[in-house]
Parts: sequence; C-alpha cells; structure tokens
Amino acid sequence: MGYDAVWDSPREECGVFGICDPGVDIPLSVYYGLFALQHRGQESAGMTLAGGVRMVTQAGMGLVTEVFRTLPQAPGHIGLGHVRYSTTGASMACNIQPIVAETAVGEIALAHNGNLINTASLREEQIAQGMTFRTTMDTEVILNLIARSAASTAEERIREAAQQIDGAFCLVIATQDKLFGLRDPQGYRPLCLGATETGWVLASETCALDSVGAKFVRDIEPGQMVCIDANGPTFSRFANPATSRRKARCSFEYVYFARPDSVFDGESVYDARLRMGAELWRESQFDGDLVMSVPDSGNVAAIGYARASGIPYAEGLIKNRYMGRTFIQPTQAMRERSVRMKLNPVVNNVAGKRLVLIDDSIVRGTTSGIIIDLLRQAGAKEISLCISSPPVMHPCYFGIDTSERNELIAVTHSVEEIRRFVRADRLHYLSQEGLQRAIRGIPQEEICFACFDGDYRGPIPEKEEA
Amino acid sequence: MGYDAVWDSPREECGVFGICDPGVDIPLSVYYGLFALQHRGQESAGMTLAGGVRMVTQAGMGLVTEVFRTLPQAPGHIGLGHVRYSTTGASMACNIQPIVAETAVGEIALAHNGNLINTASLREEQIAQGMTFRTTMDTEVILNLIARSAASTAEERIREAAQQIDGAFCLVIATQDKLFGLRDPQGYRPLCLGATETGWVLASETCALDSVGAKFVRDIEPGQMVCIDANGPTFSRFANPATSRRKARCSFEYVYFARPDSVFDGESVYDARLRMGAELWRESQFDGDLVMSVPDSGNVAAIGYARASGIPYAEGLIKNRYMGRTFIQPTQAMRERSVRMKLNPVVNNVAGKRLVLIDDSIVRGTTSGIIIDLLRQAGAKEISLCISSPPVMHPCYFGIDTSERNELIAVTHSVEEIRRFVRADRLHYLSQEGLQRAIRGIPQEEICFACFDGDYRGPIPEKEEA
Amino acid sequence: MGYDAVWDSPREECGVFGICDPGVDIPLSVYYGLFALQHRGQESAGMTLAGGVRMVTQAGMGLVTEVFRTLPQAPGHIGLGHVRYSTTGASMACNIQPIVAETAVGEIALAHNGNLINTASLREEQIAQGMTFRTTMDTEVILNLIARSAASTAEERIREAAQQIDGAFCLVIATQDKLFGLRDPQGYRPLCLGATETGWVLASETCALDSVGAKFVRDIEPGQMVCIDANGPTFSRFANPATSRRKARCSFEYVYFARPDSVFDGESVYDARLRMGAELWRESQFDGDLVMSVPDSGNVAAIGYARASGIPYAEGLIKNRYMGRTFIQPTQAMRERSVRMKLNPVVNNVAGKRLVLIDDSIVRGTTSGIIIDLLRQAGAKEISLCISSPPVMHPCYFGIDTSERNELIAVTHSVEEIRRFVRADRLHYLSQEGLQRAIRGIPQEEICFACFDGDYRGPIPEKEEA
Amino acid sequence: MGYDAVWDSPREECGVFGICDPGVDIPLSVYYGLFALQHRGQESAGMTLAGGVRMVTQAGMGLVTEVFRTLPQAPGHIGLGHVRYSTTGASMACNIQPIVAETAVGEIALAHNGNLINTASLREEQIAQGMTFRTTMDTEVILNLIARSAASTAEERIREAAQQIDGAFCLVIATQDKLFGLRDPQGYRPLCLGATETGWVLASETCALDSVGAKFVRDIEPGQMVCIDANGPTFSRFANPATSRRKARCSFEYVYFARPDSVFDGESVYDARLRMGAELWRESQFDGDLVMSVPDSGNVAAIGYARASGIPYAEGLIKNRYMGRTFIQPTQAMRERSVRMKLNPVVNNVAGKRLVLIDDSIVRGTTSGIIIDLLRQAGAKEISLCISSPPVMHPCYFGIDTSERNELIAVTHSVEEIRRFVRADRLHYLSQEGLQRAIRGIPQEEICFACFDGDYRGPIPEKEEA
Repeated sequence: MGYDAVWDSPREECGVFGICDPGVDIPLSVYYGLFALQHRGQESAGMTLAGGVRMVTQAGMGLVTEVFRTLPQAPGHIGLGHVRYSTTGASMACNIQPIVAETAVGEIALAHNGNLINTASLREEQIAQGMTFRTTMDTEVILNLIARSAASTAEERIREAAQQIDGAFCLVIATQDKLFGLRDPQGYRPLCLGATETGWVLASETCALDSVGAKFVRDIEPGQMVCIDANGPTFSRFANPATSRRKARCSFEYVYFARPDSVFDGESVYDARLRMGAELWRESQFDGDLVMSVPDSGNVAAIGYARASGIPYAEGLIKNRYMGRTFIQPTQAMRERSVRMKLNPVVNNVAGKRLVLIDDSIVRGTTSGIIIDLLRQAGAKEISLCISSPPVMHPCYFGIDTSERNELIAVTHSVEEIRRFVRADRLHYLSQEGLQRAIRGIPQEEICFACFDGDYRGPIPEKEEA
Repeated sequence: MGYDAVWDSPREECGVFGICDPGVDIPLSVYYGLFALQHRGQESAGMTLAGGVRMVTQAGMGLVTEVFRTLPQAPGHIGLGHVRYSTTGASMACNIQPIVAETAVGEIALAHNGNLINTASLREEQIAQGMTFRTTMDTEVILNLIARSAASTAEERIREAAQQIDGAFCLVIATQDKLFGLRDPQGYRPLCLGATETGWVLASETCALDSVGAKFVRDIEPGQMVCIDANGPTFSRFANPATSRRKARCSFEYVYFARPDSVFDGESVYDARLRMGAELWRESQFDGDLVMSVPDSGNVAAIGYARASGIPYAEGLIKNRYMGRTFIQPTQAMRERSVRMKLNPVVNNVAGKRLVLIDDSIVRGTTSGIIIDLLRQAGAKEISLCISSPPVMHPCYFGIDTSERNELIAVTHSVEEIRRFVRADRLHYLSQEGLQRAIRGIPQEEICFACFDGDYRGPIPEKEEA
Repeated sequence: MGYDAVWDSPREECGVFGICDPGVDIPLSVYYGLFALQHRGQESAGMTLAGGVRMVTQAGMGLVTEVFRTLPQAPGHIGLGHVRYSTTGASMACNIQPIVAETAVGEIALAHNGNLINTASLREEQIAQGMTFRTTMDTEVILNLIARSAASTAEERIREAAQQIDGAFCLVIATQDKLFGLRDPQGYRPLCLGATETGWVLASETCALDSVGAKFVRDIEPGQMVCIDANGPTFSRFANPATSRRKARCSFEYVYFARPDSVFDGESVYDARLRMGAELWRESQFDGDLVMSVPDSGNVAAIGYARASGIPYAEGLIKNRYMGRTFIQPTQAMRERSVRMKLNPVVNNVAGKRLVLIDDSIVRGTTSGIIIDLLRQAGAKEISLCISSPPVMHPCYFGIDTSERNELIAVTHSVEEIRRFVRADRLHYLSQEGLQRAIRGIPQEEICFACFDGDYRGPIPEKEEA
Repeated sequence: MGYDAVWDSPREECGVFGICDPGVDIPLSVYYGLFALQHRGQESAGMTLAGGVRMVTQAGMGLVTEVFRTLPQAPGHIGLGHVRYSTTGASMACNIQPIVAETAVGEIALAHNGNLINTASLREEQIAQGMTFRTTMDTEVILNLIARSAASTAEERIREAAQQIDGAFCLVIATQDKLFGLRDPQGYRPLCLGATETGWVLASETCALDSVGAKFVRDIEPGQMVCIDANGPTFSRFANPATSRRKARCSFEYVYFARPDSVFDGESVYDARLRMGAELWRESQFDGDLVMSVPDSGNVAAIGYARASGIPYAEGLIKNRYMGRTFIQPTQAMRERSVRMKLNPVVNNVAGKRLVLIDDSIVRGTTSGIIIDLLRQAGAKEISLCISSPPVMHPCYFGIDTSERNELIAVTHSVEEIRRFVRADRLHYLSQEGLQRAIRGIPQEEICFACFDGDYRGPIPEKEEA
C-alpha cells in the first residue's frame, strides 16, 4: 500500500449523529450524542447546526469535550454531529466532518461513517469534470455527487448519489429543513432511529439515543433511506450496485468496537459478549481459580466466562484512568513499564492463582506478552488466555481500523506460536462458529466475518485489488 | 466555617512519592509514581529533583500528564513527588508541592499528605517570630520548624519538627543526599517503603511501588521515621504529643479512597472491598436477579456481594471514560441527563430485573436518586441499594475530603428517609461492625471510623473546636 | 448591505508571496516573505509547499510568528504564502489561504489578493453546475474555473480562468513544477518579481523581496501573467473583460496601506509620502513650533512637512509597542484612556507649543478627537491637523478595508464640521491634485482615487449595484 | 561569575507601580500602569490587590496583556504592580513579584526594582536564623527583614528594613490600608509620585502616571520614604549605610532604558536624548546627506543630530512590528537575514547617500555590522556611525542588564578597532562630558556613569568583589 493509497482508501472509524427536534436544545443534544459516541473516534469532532439563515459549523481536532468548550448557537432545530478516527496516518485537520457546501438546492451538510470502495474512480471522474477536492475524504466525493445532480430536490439528489456509491456507508445529511439517514445496502455499519417526545434522532449506536433521552424506534435497514422533517420520518429504499450482494453486518462491532450498552439490529452488544465468554468456556474448558479480563474491552466476556464456568470473576488488573493525551513516551527499555503504568495487577487476586484471562483480540502480541509477564511477576501460577474472537487475519476495508494490524501476528504465526510468543500457558481463540452463536440475534448469513475468514461480501477498494 | 478557615485548616487529599536510587532515571520514576497516585489528587502535581548542585522543581496545576509534558532534568539520584487536591475551594497555584527552601543545613524539599491540627498556633507563633508565609499550607509551617531548628543536621531538625506538629501527616523529605519518610504517631494516612534492585522508594500506596518496579518492603509504622542514603534505610522513632493516643488508620482509604490494587498495613484494599460486599450480603440478605455496581468505586464490593450471594454479577451501568476536565455544565433542568452522560444502563441487564446495586457511600443523595431513576426508566423491576460503608455523619479533619459532604444527607435523615429520597426499594448501609470485619487485617482498635461514629482519636483542628 | 453580502463580496486585504528556487530553504523563505508582508493582513497566514509527491499546507488563524512556530517541510523548491485580513466580520477559519485542490492536471495551490466583481454570477453558475463551495472566498471561484477548464495544461487553464474573472486580483499559483503570477488588467493591487542568485520570487511588495535577499526585477504589468519554471520566467498577456478599461493602480497603497520601504510601479512609497507632507505644507501653509505625526502611519509625511516648511520635526506621541492581541477592553467611560494606553504625549514637545499634527486619514473622527484632547491636556497651545489624503467618501471594492469606514465622517460632515468634531484649531486635507503630485512616478490617468472621488474605473460588485 | 551567583546577585530590570485611590477601578489602573512600564521588563508581570479581607495576587510569566487576559477583583482601594526581566539566565516562575506574606502586623505585599549589594550576607544571616527562602530574589530578603522586625507597626518595620539593606532599590509596598514608596539613598533607580483627583500613584516612570490620568507631583528623593493612606502622603527620611555616599542617578535610563515620554528627577528623557544628538554633532561634525537612526532607541538622538547639523532626518530603516515572542531561529548562515527581518532599508533614502546613522550603544558589535552591511547593499555611499553614549566597559550591578554585555566589544577593542569590526566609515562615541551636558537637568555629581567609567559610587555586590 503506497503513498497514493492516502487518496484512495483512507479507512476511518467514525460515529454519526443527527437530530431534528423543535422541542430541545439542539447544540446541547448533539454534544451529548457525540459524547456518547466518543469511543468511535477520538481524533476530531464536529457539529453543524441547520435551520437558520446559514448553517453554522464548529469542529476541531480533539475530544468532544475539548472541541466544544463552548457550544455554537443557531436558531434552527436540526443538528448534525461527527466523531472521527482516521487510519491514514497523518491526521488532517481539513478532513474533519461534517462538511457543508452550498448547492443549487441550498446548503447541505454531511456526516459519514464507513468507507467506499469506488472512491477512486468517482474521484477521478469528478476531477475530470473539474470538481475540486480539498480533503482526502470519501465524504467529499458523495457531496460532489449530490451537488452535481440534475435532480430538483435535495432528497432526489441524495438518493441519486447513494445509488452511485459503493461500499460501507452510513450517512446523516442535513438541509435547512430536513434530516436524512442512509445505510448502505449491505449494512456494514449500524445506524438507528430514536424518538424524543418532540422529535427524532439518528445515531450510530443506541447509547447515543439514550444520552439524549430518546427511545429506540428501529434500525435503519440496509439500503434504506429515511427523510425526517416537520411531518416526521418517511422511509424509502434506494437501489445501488451493492443491493443484490449479501448483507454484511459487522461482527467486530460486537466483539470490540461498539459500546456494551448499545443494541444493533436487534442484538444487544452486552449479551453477545456475555455469550462470547460462555462460548469460550464451552470451547476451551480452561479451568482456573479466577477469571479476569484485560480491562475494559474484555470485561463482559470475562463475566460471561465466569458465569458459564462457575469460576469466580475478579478484577485482576486495575486500569489507570488518567492517561490523558500527552504521555511521555518511555524508552524502549521501559516499554514494559509503560503497560504497567496503564495496568497494575491486584496481587492478592494473582499470587499463587491459576488465572483465566480474557481479551477481545490479539494484534501484534507484544502487549499481551507484557501483561502476562506482569501477572507472572505478581505470582500467577498459571495463565490461560482466551480471546473472544477468531484470529484477525485480513484487513477490514469497511470502517474498522486494521492499520495497526498491518503486522497482525495471526497472519504469520500459528496459534501455538502465538501462545509461546505471549508466554501464556494456554491460549484459545473463539471459533468463528462460536462467535456466530454469540451473535445469535442476527441471521448468520448477514454477518461479515471478513477480517477473520477473508470472505469479503463484495468488492474491496479499487486500488487494493491491484 | 468562615473565610478565615482558609488559613487555619484547609483539608487536602494528597499522594506523596520519594525515591533514592542511583540506578534509575529519577524524573521518569517520579513521573510513574505520581501517575499511579493520580487518584489521590488531580488538582496539581509537582516533582523536585535533589542531588545536584541545586534542587530542581517542576510543578503546576493539572494532571500529572499535563504538568509533565516534558520532564525536568538534574544530575542527582533523589526525587520527590506530590499530587494534591485541596478542599479549600479556591485552588491556589502557590500551594503546589513539593516546597523547597534553602536552610542553614542546605536545601530541603518537602512533600506532605495529611492535615495538622495545631497549624494555627504554630503559624501564629512563627509569624510572631518574623517567619513569612507565602501559602496556606500546613507544609510551610513544618518547613519553617525545620529551618528554625537549632539542631546541626537535617535529620535532627526533621525529628524536632515532627515532635512539634500534631495531626495527620505523612512526610517525604529530601536533602541533597538523603531521603526521609515520616508517618504521624497515630498513622492516619498510609506510607510504605519499597526496594528496586538499586535503590529505595517511598509512596502513599503500594500501587506506586509497582509502577516503578519496586518490591514492597514494609509500611512505615506510626511514629516512625526512615532515613535513606547511600547506605540504605535506617529506622527510628520520634515522640510527639500524639504518641500516646490511639492509632487511627483510616478506614475510608479502604472503602473508597485508595486504589484497589494497593495494600496498606498488611491489608489488601481489594480483599477488604470484596469482604465489604460479602458482609453486605450477610447483613442485608437482599435478593435479586443481578448484582451491579456504580462504577468504578463500587465494583469490587459488588463482585464480593455476587460471590457471597450467588447472584450473578453484571456491568449494568456503562461509564463514559472521556469526561476530560472541561465539561459544559448542563442546565439545572438537564441534570439528570448529566448523570446519564457519565452512566448509561445496559438495558438487557436491567429491564424486568430485580437489581442489587452497590455503591461505596451516599453523599447528598441526589446522584444516587438519578441513577436509580435511570435504572427504573430502563425497566428495572426492583432496586435494592447497598452501601459498603456506614452513613457518613462527621467531617474528616485528617486528609479525606468531606467538604462536599457539608450537606451530608445522613446527618439530617434517617435511613428510611434516605431510601425514599433516592427512590430505592430497599436500602442497606454496611454496619460499622461489618466494615470492621471487612478490614480484618488491621487490629480493630487501630482503625479510625470517626467519619462514621464521630469517635475522633485525638484533638481536631484548633479553630474547628470553637 | 445585508447578510447575503457575506457570500457576494467580502472584501479582503491580503499579501501574497511565491518562490521558485532550488537553491534556498523554501519554507524559511516563505516565512520571511510573509513576515515582511504581515502589515497587509494579521488575521490568518498560510503556506503551501509544492514540488514533492503531494503539496503540503500549513495555515491557521493568527500572526505569521504564531501560525509558524514550526515550519512545514517538503522536498520541493516551490512555495506559496498568504496573509489575510477579512472585512466580512466573522473571521472564518475555513477561508484561510492558500487553497489547494487536486485537478485533472495535478494539484494546484492558489493565493489571491484583491476582490472580484463578478463572483456572484460565477458562483451561481458554478453551483448550478454542481460545484461545491466550502468557503466564502473569491479564490474558490477562481480555483473552480481552473479545475473545470477543458484545457490540457495548467498554464492554459489559469489563463482561461483569468479571462473570466473581473475585478481586482493578484494571483500567485503553484503547480508541482511551476509558479505563476498574474495581475488584473487594471492593475488595482501590486505584484512584483524579484530574483535571488538561484531562483525567482513573486510578492505583493518589494519589502518581501528584500526580506529574502532577492533583487527587484520588475513589476508584473496589469493584464500580465508570468510563468516561472526551471527555465526561468516567461511573460505573456491575457485578455479579459477589463482589458480595455482604464488602469486603476491604488492610490491608497501609497497613502497608508503599503510599507514605506516598498516601491510599486516605479514609485517609492517613502518618497511619495515625503511629497505628500511637502504638498500639505504647500497647500495649508500651517505654521507652528513643531511638526509631529500620529505614529506610525503619519511619520514620513510629517518628516516631509517638516523639511518643506523648515519647522522642526519631533516625536510628540510615543506609541506603546506591547499591545499584543488580547487586550482588556476598557469601559466606554475609559475610551480616552484606551487611546492613551497606545499613545502618550512627550510633554516637553507639546506644552506651550503650536503643533502641526500629521495623520494619513480620518475615519470616524473619534480617535483623532481623543488624540487632540490628549495633546491639549499636555499643554498644546495650538493644533493644526493635516491629513495626507483627501476625505474618504466612497467604499473601496477592490482590496482596501473600508468596512470600518461605514460611518465615514467625511460622507456626512463638511471639513469645518470635522474640524470642530475633532477639536482641532485648523484642519487641512491634502487635495486630490496634491496627492497626484505626490505620487508623481505613476501616470495620473492610471491611478484609482475612487475612495476619494467616487470615480470607479470599472463596474463595482454585482450585488453592490442594487 | 559561577553558578552560585544565581543566589547572590541576580540582576533585574523592573518596573514598579502602586496606587491608593478609592475613586477608581484599582485592577484596571494597575493594568494600565504596568502596560505603560512594559518596556522595563517583559518576562513576567504581577499585581496584588490589598484592602480586602485577604490580599489577592495574580501574576505569571509573559507580557502584561498575556498575564492579565482577565483582571483579578478585590474590594479594596490599594493596588501594587510589577514587571520584570531577570538577567539570571534561567527565568524562574517563582521569582515573579509582587511577593506577599502574612506577618505579625498583617499581610504585606512588596514590589522591588533594583539590586541590593548586601543580599548575600543578609540571606546567610536569615538562613542561620531559620528563615526559609523560596526564591532567589533580593525582595524576599527585604520581606524577611520586615517580618522579623520587632517594631509594632508596618511603617516602622519597613523603615528598619530599609536601613539594613544596601544597594539600588525602589520599593512599593502595600499593607491592607497603606501604600509605601521608598527610594535608596543614592537614588539609583527612579520613582515618582502622581495624583489623580481622588488618590495617589507611585511609579517607576512618569509615563505610567500619564497612563492612569495622574498628574506628576514629585520624585521620591533618594533616601526618602512616602507613606500614603486615607489622609494622603506623608514623607520621611530613613538613614542606611549608603546615606553618606554620593548620589548615583542612573545615566543609562536617559540613554536607553526609559521611555522618551518620561521625566526623571526634573529631566525629560526626550530632551536629554535630543541633546545627546546635538552633542554628537558638536563633537563629531560628521557630515552627510541624511541622518537616520536604528529604530526605535536611536530615533530621538537622530532627530537632535539632524536639527543641530541641519542635515535632513529620515526614516532609513523600517522596523517590522510583528516580531511576537515565538520566532523561528534562523540558521547561523541566515543571521544577516534575521536582522533584515526586523530592519529593512528604505532604498531611496540610502542609495548613493552619505548617511549619519545614530544608535544608543554598541554591545557586541555584531548587529551593528550587519545593519551597516544592509545599508551598503542598499547602496549607501558612506556611513558615519554615531553612538549616543560612551563605550560601555563595566557591568552595572544596580538594575540595568549588562549580562548580554559579558563580551562587551569596548572592553577589548579600541574605537578604531570597533569601527573596522562594524564596517563603518567613521565612528564616534559621545564623550562622557557630552553625555553629562545632555543630562544637564541633573547635578553632574549626582549621576552614575559607572558602566562607562567604572566609578562605582558605592560598594558592589559582595560576591562580585572576590
């Protein structure tokens, strides 16, 4: 993947939020919603307020609480928000969303979660037509499609644009009087609709609905578009090249990415993780004195393992919550201590104990090894490591950061080699079947496991195929 | 308590750290140590490096990671660190520690955790003698005692000073070639000694020893002073007015303040909290479908309750980890949503369930009420609230912040009234006997429960008696 | 002028800089150049480095020294810079230049000084064609013209674009291997070419050539375009709607805006101002004991007045140089003291003296009045105020900020009324003939005096005509 | 001068300000006063407000406009301010003034300009008595003397302290109800008293009186103390070791340090500089086409030279006013260009001209050489350099920074050698007699010229004598 890839397929993890509600404080609601979605992207945050004479946007690099030390104000009742983490290496301020443009049908603001696979050709085509690009974002390509459309209404233009793009996308779009939500035909990333007493909310996860006191109404279906205005939501379907492909709801949202208090496509993330733990016990039958997790991502699966096995659950590693963002980088020789800064064993839970340790995944294996060393130094007698997903062996092109997984240990090492590398006494990865059983609320044929099994449910980005 | 109280008895929560070690990177070690103690004070942080021609101090308002974006450098092998939270309302930058002064026996740096009860008279006496005060800190009074002493060595001067002060104090003091640690004769606050391969470490909690790879050696005993130099530690005892009083090891460190991975005076905080949970079950016998905690302070006791009762443990409230320090204050009308920003129920763990909810204490009761409302809105069928300590009814003058407890609900309300105020179905506070059983590693006559039972084990600050 | 005007004709004061030089440190040179042009815009600054695989841009709100605390790095030998002050009220971060876009002929970066008059129709047309706008800048319209062009080279596309735009513009444009400079056919704003030993420099003023050690080569002529590459500069002419109109070199650059060490179109700004002072004496024959200026803008004309009249020149008002950007706003009642913070009389030069005070222009008259009061309080016996330009009575649509001149006192008051308003004993404005004589290096028919006489030498912005 | 010198004789340039006025906004007045004194110290600024229950201090590193983005508030009518530049190399935040301490006679705040010569012994003595030092400032020693005094009133204690200190000092001191001003018996540094309609002001320079609309009343006399309270000022004299020594009013304040709009001890700085220029002409008789200065410090002397000689005055070098504080350091090879960033010749004033260039002093000679090169490159035919003071050959221990003068060129080079080093055609330094004539308002026997002639009018700091 050369330098050009920057323009072709930057992969982004994002969270999107939209609200159309005359009865609440819009900027504060968007703030709450973004704050609840912060785990989906900590690099930048942005908010656009529509409904006034001109849209107002406030955005910047940093956490939601940093970007919005004060809130923008505008008279309207429509708001859009976005949090973002980019895997493209150089974090570019210009890539912050939402992006807003004046079009022949008025101002349009757009927030996007996902990654398109036909950006390169669309971009090339648009450049040939004289469109200019200020960012490296897929989102700009979509906005151009909407702007260039000959259709006479924003709604038709958005539908047209949605028909031309391919890949993973959840879009929340605002005009001065309407809020739109779209989910790609394969349903890679989640998008849900909620209702307050006086209005409507769109969000990547249900935890953001909760944060503004909205009740969950329904998930936006793959290939579905919702248009919300003063009369409430209207649903429709748009057809695009991906329509006939298999659904591809992301399994990794359940394993790691989503917040445990969210529910997607009818399946509770918490329950799915609890079952991952139970499946891990069923498959591994690893015995021990205590079950503990690598906090926080392994917590729920560890509780599930403990319940299923009857082995007591304990907090064996205490996580320091004060990391902040500016951390003095330890020298290589002190890398072990760096992990120790974040995680410290509770000696009495570890010394002389046989531990079952639960984590959600193994990336390079380095950190896992250091954690296991820490536990050994604290006196652990035996460490059985259980991973609540299969080995990650393939990059995700659809919205999950696998860039740090470039040197994925599972690509080049057998499970036994990994076990030795991380110094565990035993190691078990949840099987794909186990994971499927855990996410039982979703029809199995609709789940994407590509990062585990390489079975991409549609084309991958153009430049990546070469 | 009028304005003058600022000078008389500001109460501070603090963490102290000291190291004397020619074999490690001193600034980095102090940084690690302070980072591990960050929970003991988030308002300011400071570090003094001794052992060079001049001591070097870097300090500031903010978190450890903020104050030390770069580390100070100095040639010596002795370092001192301090984190602090002051209850005096106005956070004063000048009150940051360590404080350093040139004396007739060379430069002396001092870091202090605790609160003296005879500051006012010592201060008055010193002012009459022409000493000047730049801060409102007890620490300055102690430094003046050391500076004013007629003794010829720093060690004797420190001992003399320690004999004149009364109240709660753990002191870590550095000269250019020695590191001292002292703990008041009643032992209010903890202080422990650890060893690296090449040197020695003093810290408020063992988690800070772990953070620099030091092994726990022993706790500094009440009334004990340790002097560390190139020849290692030498222990001695100092006598002061408090010597004959009852020991007063703080029970609230176990309930709430300390990190669960620390061990004080031979008792593991984690184990003590686990037993608090078990005792809660033994006393309350509250049944339910799930046990959950108000994260993070109630986690361990909840696990203990679950184990003892056999009721499954679950994470029923997900805590948002991205609060940061600059948070837009919600309007009064949105206070409920403010709690909801921090805590969100996992609906499937709550809806239709009978919950046993564990928290460490109740202050005003407002937040507890909102949390219980949140759980009800998420469908909880029954909520039994268990508090892992007795009602807090008396202020602490010895290093725990009870300033937010000014309007302590337990002072003016019965348990039944509190239950109604927080809208719980049932409410049980751990009895003092139960708490004593939970902290069983400490002889009961040596534990201070004054905040619960008002039995202060010595005089309280001079101005407070009036 | 309503809200819509924001999109139609924001007026901007700017400075532009470009360099193509394989023999120097490009980022440092652009930094030096922008620093020299800082007086042309203090709101934002930006730099684009071309010649590498991808262009690199660093830009932000603030002074050059603030935006470039560190310099960007890139391998190429072409750089572009821009400083900007916008009169549109709300300072918009997104409007920072240079702007960069990928086009069918590669990346193009553009920096612009001036204001177009046909932006509104071009913009409307482009929106109808589906182009999207992220900013309110004329510059984006130009960039779109270049991007949309069917021509096969950047050079032809730039020429085509230049032929479609109308108004005041100096453009410095970079591709990955070429640097372009263009000046509008009427020559409103200045642009000059300089040479280092190894390369070429374009800048708004010659002081920026000096700052990088470049020798002045020639001014870019109205309607001229220069293309610089490895073979050096090539000059050509482009025709556009304005070609047949009268030249309109800005007289106000000489009066106030340009730095006195710059030379435009063959006329030294310093010399022109010196002559303005002499002309003022010739016209007014105001006698006095001392000539002094309102620093710094009146300094040179005051020296000229002193020389011509034989009256001694003195620094009668000392200017405080430490204003910085964050200034506590005084209450209305203390407005006089606010001016006094900036300017303080040298009492011995004022007390009992008859003063001739020179300033470049009067806007609202409020500040002039306060200054004259200050001098009276310091004991001035007589104050004769001389203004080195005619009364400003018409807005400039071509790159000089007259937005603060909305309530231009000269529009509604006679000279005698203004004299009374500012409490001067005598008041003389330089006549337009006098100003013409002062700028004698430029053919009089080529100078624009529209802000004084309303004789616009071409159409004004579309929306302004209504 | 070794490392220990940091504690013994740090030399500081400072400005002090005090106000006692029930009729004005005290914080705003102190702000204005400090802003007017900013040229006396740009490193740190501080303000203390007295008169409330507790004194309130706000201080920090940086310019006045940076430290006081918001102003402190307090109910009283007494304020103290300080700006400071330290020559001790490491800028120490703890050294910021005013310093405040609680004493047996209440809180006392102190701001100090000058340098003591007996700090080391006083400090040693105080340390032996058990006083502690937090800073390296003389000021702390003075505060300790006041605090330690047995006298019963603040006034007596201050007088006693003033009798024990030796060297250069202007002190402005506040208690909760009084404001004091003291000037050392030799009168090294200036201090003046002004009156508003409702109160009284003390300041280092009259320009600060002007800034708050106060009228000059009188200079504080050497050895004089003024005590201001509700009844107005009371003057008295204090005797101390220096009383019988020669007066030592600083000549360098007139040459360079003070603002030209200030008047000290009856002599206008502006007028003195004008006469320095005239004396320079009288002595050198250097002819030329134009007189110009190195701005801004040489401006007034250049005007004086022009008037006396009849040679026209011109602004030949334009100074860039936007340097700010964060400036990218040029590489050594670009040092010339660094000076060029700050100063650019007005070519028409230089090319082919014989120039008389006026500067206030020569330090190392490097910058002078670069400026002369710049003028030559701009075509100067002849450059005659005139310096408005004699060669600086001795360090000042009394409040003027000569630390950059460590390698003073005049110490090791003859005037002819310096002329060659700076590449001037001719070079003349004003004679000491000429300087004396210029400062004619002061009895010559009362002026200190020690930096020129080494005739220190009293002992120098203790450690420096060794």
